[in-house]
Amino acid sequence: MGPHPAVAAIRLAVRRVLHDVITECSERASSDIERSRLTSAAVTDRAAAPPPADDRPLVLVACSGGADSMALASALAFEARKLSVRAGAVTVDHGLQPGSDLRAAEVVSRLTAMRLDPVESVAVTVGRDGGPEAAARDARYAALDAAAERHGAVAVLLGHTRDDQAETVLLGLARGSGTRSLSGMAPVSGATGRYRRPFLQLDRQTARKACLVQAIPVWDDPHNADPAYTRSRLRHEGLPALEKALGKGVVEALARTAQLSRDDADALDAWAADVESAVRDDTGQLECAKLYALPPAVRRRVLRRAAVVAGAPAGSLFARHIEEIDRLITGWRGQGAINLPGRVEAQRQGGRLVIRQG
Amino acid sequence: MGPHPAVAAIRLAVRRVLHDVITECSERASSDIERSRLTSAAVTDRAAAPPPADDRPLVLVACSGGADSMALASALAFEARKLSVRAGAVTVDHGLQPGSDLRAAEVVSRLTAMRLDPVESVAVTVGRDGGPEAAARDARYAALDAAAERHGAVAVLLGHTRDDQAETVLLGLARGSGTRSLSGMAPVSGATGRYRRPFLQLDRQTARKACLVQAIPVWDDPHNADPAYTRSRLRHEGLPALEKALGKGVVEALARTAQLSRDDADALDAWAADVESAVRDDTGQLECAKLYALPPAVRRRVLRRAAVVAGAPAGSLFARHIEEIDRLITGWRGQGAINLPGRVEAQRQGGRLVIRQG
Repeated sequence: MGPHPAVAAIRLAVRRVLHDVITECSERASSDIERSRLTSAAVTDRAAAPPPADDRPLVLVACSGGADSMALASALAFEARKLSVRAGAVTVDHGLQPGSDLRAAEVVSRLTAMRLDPVESVAVTVGRDGGPEAAARDARYAALDAAAERHGAVAVLLGHTRDDQAETVLLGLARGSGTRSLSGMAPVSGATGRYRRPFLQLDRQTARKACLVQAIPVWDDPHNADPAYTRSRLRHEGLPALEKALGKGVVEALARTAQLSRDDADALDAWAADVESAVRDDTGQLECAKLYALPPAVRRRVLRRAAVVAGAPAGSLFARHIEEIDRLITGWRGQGAINLPGRVEAQRQGGRLVIRQG
Repeated sequence: MGPHPAVAAIRLAVRRVLHDVITECSERASSDIERSRLTSAAVTDRAAAPPPADDRPLVLVACSGGADSMALASALAFEARKLSVRAGAVTVDHGLQPGSDLRAAEVVSRLTAMRLDPVESVAVTVGRDGGPEAAARDARYAALDAAAERHGAVAVLLGHTRDDQAETVLLGLARGSGTRSLSGMAPVSGATGRYRRPFLQLDRQTARKACLVQAIPVWDDPHNADPAYTRSRLRHEGLPALEKALGKGVVEALARTAQLSRDDADALDAWAADVESAVRDDTGQLECAKLYALPPAVRRRVLRRAAVVAGAPAGSLFARHIEEIDRLITGWRGQGAINLPGRVEAQRQGGRLVIRQG
């Protein structure tokens, strides 16, 4: 008899991602060897270094102790044994509740019982920048990055499910800043493609069920039910009301929207990057007439890039800023300079658009 | 003392649209004269025709008797007098409730009292295709098209507000078919650009207020509060819950999303149309290798266009169909032919993608 369908589903999701990771590792390794062949010094160094104790790649799982990430940890432990992969885990103690250190220790012992190795608890200090959720997230990823570096991990798995993805799309929708903000979380992210989200197509219920049938104790983070948090309100009130109005397929539709929006945003960003040199004159200044001729979607992206390059912080540039710059091109009636975040100014000067830090 | 701010807002919105309509009319007229100068026969005909009784362009308002369209009618009546425009109105009797004919007659008398002329009530028979809301909409637009033709109207104004736009975006989101489905209603639509939506940036509350302060009686369509209708559930439950979770700016964010999504979808559609000839071989067949090299967002649009050209009804082609065709390009493992709506088949044959009706 095979495993329970929920367990089979979480394992399949993890297996696929591990296959990707292993393939990328071996491609990287062979190109490293290729490179080292070209430099005799490197070959000498390599020959002199002692062989590593265990040269199987290490994959870590980021685990809060909740159902999603405990299910992910259990699937990683199972699949890693069958493939040539070492599996470890990191739990981050955000220190936001009394006794969070004891909780982290308990999660460590559960992960160790799954025969994950190394298993580590990392305590972080959560700041205040950008609100409580953003600050906790920043601290968490910094700790995960550091842990991955310390252990030489090739990947860190995250337990975000399709339900989390749907919530993220709605949060993006509330910003009203367009296609990129609707694209949710990427299956592969981080500067080095370190973070992987195997459960992005899987619903939360499947992860819970997999824990239940494997008798894995899980912890329900009280933050997830705290109406002070936007995501929690969305999860417990907003999304259920939307499902009641629009039908049960909403979560799936939102997740599909994320994927389609990501591809659309990528293609349009590529177009904007492509066209950028063509809309500048010999001295590198943006020509208004050439900008005018672009499709609005592409022009707005060129303007956004130019503002960021000039020093405007990307996170503080909103759609309304870009619209205002755009009106220098499409609705010119002698407007003055426009103030943008990061002390950046945009103004039209003799048929050129000048964007620079003041 | 000027008018109440709500009245000023609805009038400004209508004035802007009338200016656009008048400008387009005069541009069209001068190009007609230009054309007629090139054909002496046309000039003779023109000279022989009797002068029209009133050559001011006619603009109609589609009016249900509800607050949005009654506010629109009042603003049209006011602004048309100041500009060189005749203003009329059409109310459509859907015949879905007992006494709907009396209601339509009452709306006609209210519109006539606003000195709109012509004012007409048109009775339609609502079919069943695509559900009750779609069937009513189809019947309504057919009647409005016919009325516009009959009276020679240059434009038909529709009372959709920013709140309607937000609801439309959420309905599109529930389909999960990407950027185009998030683009809501266009400010200008219809094959000839006949339909105009002056209130798309205005909230429903402003329209209600404008009716109130002008002592215009309005009718609340019981359908708007009937939970049997998706849009009504969205209006009375889904959207308020979303606002509670995400904050009051949700409606505005959804409306902005519509605009940005529309521009993005337009740009990507243009890209797909542009690239189409380049991905076909000398015999006009789609080459898989060239399709593979396109960004996914562009490739999917090329595939969608090809399926529609081959005879698949656009409205029945869902994201999952396109994904399945796409896998013939990106995940080729010898799959068989794929069945699409409209008896269209897609299959890969020797490096070519063949999409045709069976």
